[in-house]
Amino acid sequence: MRARDLATQFPTVTMDTPVYNAARLLAEQDLPGLIVVDGRESPLTILPGTQVLRLAVPGYCQDDPALARVVDEEHADRFLRSLAGKTVREALPREPRELPVTDPDATVLQLAALMARTRSPLVAVVDDGRLVGAVTLQALLDWAVSA
Amino acid sequence: MRARDLATQFPTVTMDTPVYNAARLLAEQDLPGLIVVDGRESPLTILPGTQVLRLAVPGYCQDDPALARVVDEEHADRFLRSLAGKTVREALPREPRELPVTDPDATVLQLAALMARTRSPLVAVVDDGRLVGAVTLQALLDWAVSA
Repeated sequence: MRARDLATQFPTVTMDTPVYNAARLLAEQDLPGLIVVDGRESPLTILPGTQVLRLAVPGYCQDDPALARVVDEEHADRFLRSLAGKTVREALPREPRELPVTDPDATVLQLAALMARTRSPLVAVVDDGRLVGAVTLQALLDWAVSA
Repeated sequence: MRARDLATQFPTVTMDTPVYNAARLLAEQDLPGLIVVDGRESPLTILPGTQVLRLAVPGYCQDDPALARVVDEEHADRFLRSLAGKTVREALPREPRELPVTDPDATVLQLAALMARTRSPLVAVVDDGRLVGAVTLQALLDWAVSA
């Protein structure tokens, strides 16, 4: 079993997608993360779901989640709304990170190692610079427990 | 909206659960992670799905996922089987990590900050030392996009 066999079509966003829409896509399609592509469908960034959430959480709350308690319940409930108009580009962290990207020949063990190392439940499969699909943790585990 | 309102019952494992069974539970119930509890149902560790995978991937592959390519396809396919008999206790990393655990009064923003910070799509809700349920990234986002 290789990455090409486990990969499925996966919705993508661009740098210009509003963060709110990205979060909505994640919620509505029950995705484990998002793939940010450029105009040529080449992956720029892969964001695990928790890191999409990070785009929407103020920095001081990330440093110390207990500080989020100073925000009252009504405002806390609407934290996603506070980002109206902000795009993925504006919200991405500056520091570059290792991307969970591999080629179509990667084995199940390579995929598992990449997910474990990058803490991403989603690996983009790229052939000749182009996104051909993605392997999710769920698809990988479903295969591995039956192998 | 508070953690108690978003929390749902969540299956747990113990330190003595075989890693293979833990992976199977994750796959079959489509869980975002696992909660490891002690004999009094108090959470000892919360493992995001990618870190459950980590329990099953040899260390040298995690350090450099490209090295996983030296393992042939047949053995790669069965990487979970190679851990037959190993328990969660034996497979857990030594270094302690910040646990995504909160109390029933936590707001949506606190939950989001905790998930973003600990990179866990799962937060355990604990009242007086006892696990009362868990909030998933999916449940949090479903609420937040409709708020």
